[in-house]
Amino acid sequence: MSFLFRRQHLAFISRCRPFSSVGRADVDYFRTFLPTHAILTTLPNDSGSVAPAELDVYNRDWMGKYTGRATTVVKPRSTEEVSKIVRWCNEYDIAIVPQGGNTGLVGGSIPVNDELILSLANMNKVRSFDPVSGILITDAGCILQELTDYIAPHNHIMPIDLGAKGSCQIGGNVATNAGGLRLLRYGSLHGSVLGLEVVLADGTVLDQLTALRKDNTGYDIKQLFIGAEGTLGIVTGVSILTPAAPQASNNVVLALPHFDNVLPLYRKVKRSLSEILSAFEFIDRTAYDLAVKHGQGRGLSDEDVAGAQCFVLVETSGGRREHDEEKLNDLLAELLDAENPLILSGVLSQNPAQFSSLWALREGVTEAISKEGKAYKYDISIPLDKFKVVVDATREHLAERNLIGEHAVKHVMGYGHVGDGNLHLNICAAEYTQEIQDALEPFVYELVASYRGSISAEHGIGAAKTHALHYSKDEVSIELMRKLKALFDPRGILNPKKILE
Amino acid sequence: MSFLFRRQHLAFISRCRPFSSVGRADVDYFRTFLPTHAILTTLPNDSGSVAPAELDVYNRDWMGKYTGRATTVVKPRSTEEVSKIVRWCNEYDIAIVPQGGNTGLVGGSIPVNDELILSLANMNKVRSFDPVSGILITDAGCILQELTDYIAPHNHIMPIDLGAKGSCQIGGNVATNAGGLRLLRYGSLHGSVLGLEVVLADGTVLDQLTALRKDNTGYDIKQLFIGAEGTLGIVTGVSILTPAAPQASNNVVLALPHFDNVLPLYRKVKRSLSEILSAFEFIDRTAYDLAVKHGQGRGLSDEDVAGAQCFVLVETSGGRREHDEEKLNDLLAELLDAENPLILSGVLSQNPAQFSSLWALREGVTEAISKEGKAYKYDISIPLDKFKVVVDATREHLAERNLIGEHAVKHVMGYGHVGDGNLHLNICAAEYTQEIQDALEPFVYELVASYRGSISAEHGIGAAKTHALHYSKDEVSIELMRKLKALFDPRGILNPKKILE
Repeated sequence: MSFLFRRQHLAFISRCRPFSSVGRADVDYFRTFLPTHAILTTLPNDSGSVAPAELDVYNRDWMGKYTGRATTVVKPRSTEEVSKIVRWCNEYDIAIVPQGGNTGLVGGSIPVNDELILSLANMNKVRSFDPVSGILITDAGCILQELTDYIAPHNHIMPIDLGAKGSCQIGGNVATNAGGLRLLRYGSLHGSVLGLEVVLADGTVLDQLTALRKDNTGYDIKQLFIGAEGTLGIVTGVSILTPAAPQASNNVVLALPHFDNVLPLYRKVKRSLSEILSAFEFIDRTAYDLAVKHGQGRGLSDEDVAGAQCFVLVETSGGRREHDEEKLNDLLAELLDAENPLILSGVLSQNPAQFSSLWALREGVTEAISKEGKAYKYDISIPLDKFKVVVDATREHLAERNLIGEHAVKHVMGYGHVGDGNLHLNICAAEYTQEIQDALEPFVYELVASYRGSISAEHGIGAAKTHALHYSKDEVSIELMRKLKALFDPRGILNPKKILE
Repeated sequence: MSFLFRRQHLAFISRCRPFSSVGRADVDYFRTFLPTHAILTTLPNDSGSVAPAELDVYNRDWMGKYTGRATTVVKPRSTEEVSKIVRWCNEYDIAIVPQGGNTGLVGGSIPVNDELILSLANMNKVRSFDPVSGILITDAGCILQELTDYIAPHNHIMPIDLGAKGSCQIGGNVATNAGGLRLLRYGSLHGSVLGLEVVLADGTVLDQLTALRKDNTGYDIKQLFIGAEGTLGIVTGVSILTPAAPQASNNVVLALPHFDNVLPLYRKVKRSLSEILSAFEFIDRTAYDLAVKHGQGRGLSDEDVAGAQCFVLVETSGGRREHDEEKLNDLLAELLDAENPLILSGVLSQNPAQFSSLWALREGVTEAISKEGKAYKYDISIPLDKFKVVVDATREHLAERNLIGEHAVKHVMGYGHVGDGNLHLNICAAEYTQEIQDALEPFVYELVASYRGSISAEHGIGAAKTHALHYSKDEVSIELMRKLKALFDPRGILNPKKILE
C-alpha cells in the first residue's frame, strides 16, 4: 500500500495550502473500486491517462465564462462509491466539485482551482415510480427530460421545467433549487422534494429518501441541501412529488398600453382563470421589438401593438379543454369589452403550432438579445410593481453616464415571470466594457437591495456572485450560513469558494 | 442593579441544575420594558402576582394531557421585546417555552418543568398584505381564522386550514409545520412560507422576512425553523403566499366494496378532476359505522352502504361552478356505469348544507370515537397501499393478546388523508390501560418503520414522542439534529426536551 504512505506525505504538504491536489495515489485508490471508464485523469498513470482536452467539457461551463483546472474526473455509479470517494478526499484534504449537467449560469459546477470533479452522470437510474401517488424516486444523475419521458406514459409531469432540461440533472436541479417555467403553478422544490439521499463531507450517507408527503419527525434537514449548490453535501438520490399531467394547454399574448395595467391585469387573470393559470409572463416593449426584429412575434400585427408599452403571455393548463377555452374566451371578451380596457389587443392560440409560436415570442427574447449584441444579465426578484422602475432607473443611470447609444448600451429591457416576481433585467451592449460593468455594479444590486429584493432569483450564487451575497442577505444570515458550512463540512472540501467567499 | 448580582448568583447555582428558575430579579427586569398586563407571575412581586390557577391555561394543554409548572408568563408585543427577553434568559440560563395558541397534540408548547412561557399572543398585527401577489406578512401571534377573515375580502384564502383554526396562531402553525385539510391542494408550509423573522437563542433577530417567491442567495435557513417546534429559534414574523380563493366547492361521498378499490379510484379521480381536486379522504367501515351511530352520515341509506368496506370523500374547489359540477357529474356517471364498478354508490352534495353534512361524516369520526370510549391515536404516514394492512395488523395483534372486545379494545379503525398518505389509526377502548398501551407500543411504531413511514405525519414530536423519534429517523439524521440544536441554541434554553431527549 505504497500510496498510503505517499498520501500522508501529501497531507503534510497540504498544511501550507488550502487543499491537496489530486495525485497518482488518489487515482490508484479510486481504481480499486471504479472501472476504467469511470475515471478520467490527465495525471500519468499505469492504467492510462487522457489528453487535457478531454476534460474541457467538465472544466468549462457551456457559456465559456468559467474555467477550472481539474486533472481528474470521477464518475461513480452508486451512492456507496460516492461515499468512498468523499471519505477519502475528506481524509486527505482534496476539494471536490460535484457536477451534474453543468448547465448552471453562475459557475457553481466548475472548479475554481484543481479540485476533483465528481460527476453524477453515471448515477442515472430511476429507483421507483408510484403512479398512484405520483412519487418518483431517482438517482441524482438522471436527466430532467429523461425523467419527464419516463413518467409521461403514467400521465404525470415533472414539477419543474427549464430550458436546459435536455442536459440538466435532477440532482443539480435540487442543489441549485431550480425555478423554471412551472413554479407559478407547482411551487418550488422546497415543496415538491419529499426526500433526499445525501453523501456528507465525511462520507457518511444521510438517508432521508422517504416517499412521504407528510413527516413531522424533527428538523427537516434535507431542506438545507436544496439550493446549497453542493457545498453542504452531495445529493445522490431524490424523492419528488410529480403532478398529474394537464389534459390541455392554451395561451394568449396581450398588448398593454401601460405598464401600470400589468398588475390589475394579473389580478383579474388570477381571479378569472384561477387554478388553470399556469404562466403569466411579462415582456417590455424593447424586448418585444427585439424579438420581432430577430424573427419572433408572429401573431400580432403592427396595428395591434401600436401604442403598446408592454406585453403579457398568459398560459392555462387544465383538465378539460372545452372548459379551459371557455374560461379563456370569456376572460378575453371581458377584457376587450371593458369601458376602460386594460389591454389594447390580444391573440389567442388556436392550435399547437400557434401555441408554440406565442411562447417563442417570450422565449425568443434571450436569443434575440444575443444576436443583437453582448448582454449583461441580472436575474432578480423584486416586488411586482417595481419591475418598470428598476428597468427605467437602470436606463437613466446609464444615460447619465452617457452610456446609452450605439457606442455603448443599445438597449435596456425587462422581461420575466410576473407570477413569481422574477425580473430578467438585460442590458444589451455593443461590447463588454469595464465602464459599463462599473456603471451597472453595484448600482443594480443596490437598487435591488433597496426594494428588499433578491440579487439571484433562480440562478444561484455559485462562484460568480459570492461578493454580492450581502446585498440580499444580512450579516446575521451570512454568519449563520458560515456556521452551517463549518458544521456540515468542517474541512471545507465540498465545492469551495461557492456561495461563501 | 441589585438583581444583576442576584442573577449571577443564580447562574452559579445553575451549574448543578440544567436551568435556573425564573426569579424575582428576572421579573423585575422584564418589567423595565413590559407593561403590567404583559407579565403573569405567581412569584411574590412588588407589582403584584397572580393566583397559580391563572396560569393553568398556559401550563396545560387543551386535552389535559400535559402539565407544566411555569411560574411566569411573558407576553411581549414586539420582536424587540422578544429579543430582550431571550437575550436575558440565554445569559442567565433560563429555559423558555414559546407558546402560540397552545393547540398542539404532543405537548410541544407546555413546559416540562418550570420554564418561562413566552406567549406570542400580543404579537397579533398583520404587517402587510399584497392583494396582487397574495403575499401576507404578519406577526407570529395572529390567529389563523383572523388571518383567513382578513384576506377573504381580497378573494384569497390561507394555504392551511385545520380544526384548531379559531385558536391556533400562524407562528405555531409554522413552528409545527401544520398540515391540515388543504395540503393536497396547496402543499406544505415549506413551499408556501416565503420568509420568517426569528429570534435566535442569544437574542439576535434573524430577519429573512422577504416577500419573494424566488430567492436563491445562499442556504434557505428559514426552512429549518419550519417544524422545529421552537427549539431552534422563536418565530416572530411570517411571510406567506396565500392562494386565490376558489369560486365554488363541491363534494361527494362514495361507498366502496373493497379497500383494494381505493387506489384505482384515487388514480381515476385525480385524472378526471385534475386541478380542481382538493380533498380525497378515506374512512373505513368501522369509522363510518361509529360516525353514523353517533349522529353523522346522513345522505347514504342502509341499502347504499350494504357491503361497503370503506368510504371516500372527494372534494373539488375550482374557479367556475358549472365546470366543476360537470366534471364531477361526468366522473360519477362513468364510475357507476363501469362494467366492474369501483364503487357501490355515491351521494353528491346539492347545496351548502349537504356539503357541510358530507364533511361532517368525515370530521365527525373524531367526535364519535371520543363518545364511544378512550382513544389511542396514531398519526402516521405510510404508503397508500398499506393503509388497510396497518389497521388489520394492529387489530390482529390486539386479538392475539385477547385485547379485542368490550372489556378492552372495542374498535380498531383507520381514516385519514389518502392524498397525503396520512392515516389516522385509532384504537377505541373502554379504558386507558397499561396493557393496551404496551400492546400498541412499540408495535405500531415498528410496523410504521417497517414501511419506512413516519410516526408523526403532522402532529410533530413535542414532548410526547421524543423516545420514538428513532423509528422514523436514523442515527445519522438524529445526530445531525443534535448538532444543529447545539449550533443554534448552545445553552439549550429553547423549548428543552422537545423533539430531542
